[in-house]
Amino acid sequence: MTPSNERADLVFEPSGRQVRVPVGVTLFDAASWNGIAIDSTCGGHGTCKKCKVRVLEGDAPVTSLDTRAFHTEDLREGWRLACRVEARGDLRVDVPPLTTRPKAATVGVGRKVILRPAVQKRFVELSEPTLKDQRADLERLLDAMDDLELRTDLFALRAIGPALRAADYKVTAVVVDDVLVAVEPGDTSERLFGIAYDLGTTTVVATILDLATGTPLAVQSMLNRQQQSGADVISRISTIMLDPTALGRLTTHAHETLDELTAAVCEEAGVEPREVYEIAVAGNATMTHIALGIDPEPLGVAPFVLTTRAFPELLASDLGVKVHPRARAVVFPAFGAYVGGDITAGLLAAGMDRDQRTRLFIDIGTNCEIVLSSDAGLLVTAAPAGPAFEGASIRCGMRAAKGAIEAVKMTPEDLALQVIGEAEPKGLCGSGLVDAVAELVSLGFIEASGRFVTEEAARDLAPELAYRLTTVGEERVFVLHWLREPGDVERSIYLSQRDVRELQFAKAAIATGWTLLLEDAGVAVEDVKQVLLAGSFGSYLSPASAVRLGLVPELPVLRVVSAGNVAGEGAKMALLSVRERAGAVALLEEVNYVELSDRPDFNDRFVDRLSFPV
Amino acid sequence: MTPSNERADLVFEPSGRQVRVPVGVTLFDAASWNGIAIDSTCGGHGTCKKCKVRVLEGDAPVTSLDTRAFHTEDLREGWRLACRVEARGDLRVDVPPLTTRPKAATVGVGRKVILRPAVQKRFVELSEPTLKDQRADLERLLDAMDDLELRTDLFALRAIGPALRAADYKVTAVVVDDVLVAVEPGDTSERLFGIAYDLGTTTVVATILDLATGTPLAVQSMLNRQQQSGADVISRISTIMLDPTALGRLTTHAHETLDELTAAVCEEAGVEPREVYEIAVAGNATMTHIALGIDPEPLGVAPFVLTTRAFPELLASDLGVKVHPRARAVVFPAFGAYVGGDITAGLLAAGMDRDQRTRLFIDIGTNCEIVLSSDAGLLVTAAPAGPAFEGASIRCGMRAAKGAIEAVKMTPEDLALQVIGEAEPKGLCGSGLVDAVAELVSLGFIEASGRFVTEEAARDLAPELAYRLTTVGEERVFVLHWLREPGDVERSIYLSQRDVRELQFAKAAIATGWTLLLEDAGVAVEDVKQVLLAGSFGSYLSPASAVRLGLVPELPVLRVVSAGNVAGEGAKMALLSVRERAGAVALLEEVNYVELSDRPDFNDRFVDRLSFPV
Repeated sequence: MTPSNERADLVFEPSGRQVRVPVGVTLFDAASWNGIAIDSTCGGHGTCKKCKVRVLEGDAPVTSLDTRAFHTEDLREGWRLACRVEARGDLRVDVPPLTTRPKAATVGVGRKVILRPAVQKRFVELSEPTLKDQRADLERLLDAMDDLELRTDLFALRAIGPALRAADYKVTAVVVDDVLVAVEPGDTSERLFGIAYDLGTTTVVATILDLATGTPLAVQSMLNRQQQSGADVISRISTIMLDPTALGRLTTHAHETLDELTAAVCEEAGVEPREVYEIAVAGNATMTHIALGIDPEPLGVAPFVLTTRAFPELLASDLGVKVHPRARAVVFPAFGAYVGGDITAGLLAAGMDRDQRTRLFIDIGTNCEIVLSSDAGLLVTAAPAGPAFEGASIRCGMRAAKGAIEAVKMTPEDLALQVIGEAEPKGLCGSGLVDAVAELVSLGFIEASGRFVTEEAARDLAPELAYRLTTVGEERVFVLHWLREPGDVERSIYLSQRDVRELQFAKAAIATGWTLLLEDAGVAVEDVKQVLLAGSFGSYLSPASAVRLGLVPELPVLRVVSAGNVAGEGAKMALLSVRERAGAVALLEEVNYVELSDRPDFNDRFVDRLSFPV
Repeated sequence: MTPSNERADLVFEPSGRQVRVPVGVTLFDAASWNGIAIDSTCGGHGTCKKCKVRVLEGDAPVTSLDTRAFHTEDLREGWRLACRVEARGDLRVDVPPLTTRPKAATVGVGRKVILRPAVQKRFVELSEPTLKDQRADLERLLDAMDDLELRTDLFALRAIGPALRAADYKVTAVVVDDVLVAVEPGDTSERLFGIAYDLGTTTVVATILDLATGTPLAVQSMLNRQQQSGADVISRISTIMLDPTALGRLTTHAHETLDELTAAVCEEAGVEPREVYEIAVAGNATMTHIALGIDPEPLGVAPFVLTTRAFPELLASDLGVKVHPRARAVVFPAFGAYVGGDITAGLLAAGMDRDQRTRLFIDIGTNCEIVLSSDAGLLVTAAPAGPAFEGASIRCGMRAAKGAIEAVKMTPEDLALQVIGEAEPKGLCGSGLVDAVAELVSLGFIEASGRFVTEEAARDLAPELAYRLTTVGEERVFVLHWLREPGDVERSIYLSQRDVRELQFAKAAIATGWTLLLEDAGVAVEDVKQVLLAGSFGSYLSPASAVRLGLVPELPVLRVVSAGNVAGEGAKMALLSVRERAGAVALLEEVNYVELSDRPDFNDRFVDRLSFPV
């Protein structure tokens, strides 16, 4: 598949709002993605014929549906159904005012999303059958919703007769996308919920949403139960490669994790699990493969191939989630083995494809995903940063848990630590590591090459901190915190020369990634208008330290923004809007994946990027 | 839904074959239904662009797909894709000769069906992935089959990676309709099977077919395990209405019956159950509702409504059939509560919608379904014949099993019986009952009114048989067979006056049905060119006796034909051809259902039809 970078410029009147979209996107989608409301009940399937707009300038061929929706005179004046007009070139379009104001919610990185969940409920009051009107139950119901063209699930077929007869032919139809999944007695149209999951290698987060209002009702997180089979994706893939029974076990652990969170958020929100009709899951490729029972082995060995980029129609039950038995599951598609659905979700939340600014999106972790948006389109790559940020290869390293030093400040006179849970420090987590090295570089205790200066030089630079620069065995260290009496180096929390090297390698890998993307796109560093730090680690990282170390391009620090859990935000957006969801799939076609592992210039750039900026 | 009776006349050159089809049918379907082969690999989905034909006369608008498949010059000359041309008026079309001869099989009532099963296997040899070609496994496979546009089942996603890597990227893709359901290592393309079921209230029959050749490999039948919950549909519905746990139990019994037959036919044919990728089920509305776990109660009480006429996409596992885990199930759609999928299948097998002759289709049973095809389109009704033909309300009645008198011949001198299994007679089954009454009417022993003549009159008519006309208790009887010594009437097999009355009522109900259909269509009895007797009972019935009694219209006996198990044949056709299957759904739209129970003229006609023709 060749990604297309062709764009069309659209102007929506009367607001005059300008929008740039990939060629082929419909006017309806383009408007919806940009928060411009166009009337519709079918959500762009061409059945309700309500999304009438007038094309003022540009070419919009008449479709067969248009001829059914409009008189010849109207067609001549440019009236079209917005869901049928594909932007093939620039267009200026007039959007009639709405009679009712659509609901919208703010999610993602300040994205305003018009609510149009795939889940819809319709309360209908039907006439009872007679010998003169022997329409089948299903026909009777579908006739009352003839703006939709629906497929029917067997579950709904089993439910429809009893529901009709239990509630005097007054029932609520539950539709997910274009499938009638359930029929409930009486009016339950206010009760529809969805759950968004950020399925991380380490931590899994679930958010339950009221799909009628867009409101998050409860959030819960827990450690992924697969932890017992390895801390990172490579060790989990290894476990599966070595033991033929392991895939089934890890799949079960993923299901248990998701389902435990499901029960917890439903309970907290006061929602019955059967009122949850759709879930959305954002996770990296290994996590989604395993959760669906698909062998992840090819993700772990060259040439690193996915089983599939986009997933077919799935059920929540395929992921072990016990909600409505026919609830659907949206699993975010992946760009490549190391740029997974979590990144697709993150790009969606960040609106990386909807923005004319040149931006960098960096999700820092063991595997670091980097995306550049520019006039050259979207370029994406994965850089192997190694486990330094997880604290795994660091002498006094630990996860970002209670007792971890998460931030460090130094002046020549003093050193201040910020510890998670305001406890006695137990170790150094990723953000603390980055801070510590950045501060020591600023102080001059670490040279551009990454080496600690001599103790003599340290005494000249900052006499009150110099005593902390000492040795453990053969290795030079800088002590951050004395656990016992000062001087008991063995039982202190310190940063070692090797730790600095680990961080250097990690940051060089990342910096090589964005350097090559910038080169490929022909973009200069100073043209980057925003750097989004994503992922659970990125969100805790100090933008100033990231700039100081060269982890991100050397830019004014205000251009570097922590974006938070963008994967989870993307999953919420998918639940709230079928348009946004379609945008995630469209992203696959727009992105060019840059594989670093076979680039001849990789090593050169890597060596260039090892040292710290001075 | 208003059935359309509009037809278009098509002429296919060079054969000059004339075909009459409902307006809206595509040229591809029209040709395929009538055994005229047009090239295609995608089966009419508009993706392979091979079904090129030239429209010589009539109107066939150019579609967007045509513009991609042909040059302007070709379009001007009338070239079109046959799968995109909907017959809106009369057309004359030239079909290019095929380069390879399509396979065909004869099924149904002498129907020649071009093999185009929904199940397809494709053996593909793929290139291995490299760092330069990191396409996902699924993409790689689908790229090799780009004449198809497929959805993918999760099962296939789980299978694809292991299959590719186990067999050096040489695999067989299994496609059912437009879904990739499995990927198998190596070349298994010759092994694809389907099972057709006739799901009767009493008896269930399964036939396994080789879908590559159209050959039936094994047939097995057994009693429906639901028998223990009642002999007929009404008693089964009553069981379910009285006991909230009964639906689950009866559904399980249906599943057990279908699955036991499945194992038996697979075993006999030497086929692994996992090599069966599709099943087709023809059954009456009550049987299909229960088998799918849908409450049949509304079928049993006025106003007699179905839950649905046509069924959605189903899996064999929804019917408890253990074949390939993602095998599909086609369940025949029903016209009404008492004209079920068995009749739809029968009409398909009989080609009732493809024939310009005026024909009657009569499926005789407790509930008798009658269909009239004529210039007025297809009219269908259900007549409540009661249990006489099942032997249930007949003094010496029994099922058509070993020991049942199934045929009777009489001359004034002699009486001959034909007994199932060449055993000592134990009772009288439906066809024997009809024969016995017909022969006695011919002999003059039964009057047109249905009354036995006096013993004196009998002696005049046939002295050698007159002694058989005697009494049991108060009731007059005709003895067919003495079990002990002649004269021991109590222990003989006889036909009673009340039995004759039962048969009269049954035949009057049926005859009223076809009388009203003929009247509604404006067709005279003598214009009926063929009467098809369908169903397991109809097949055993003597056409001569049926005419003699007025069970069918008074026509030359050669026009009355036993059609055999047409429901099972229809199910086979659905497996062998997606075109025929689509025809079954199209039938729903073509048929006008005539409800007898609220007709004011029903009783008049019924009384007219009580007496026997003289």
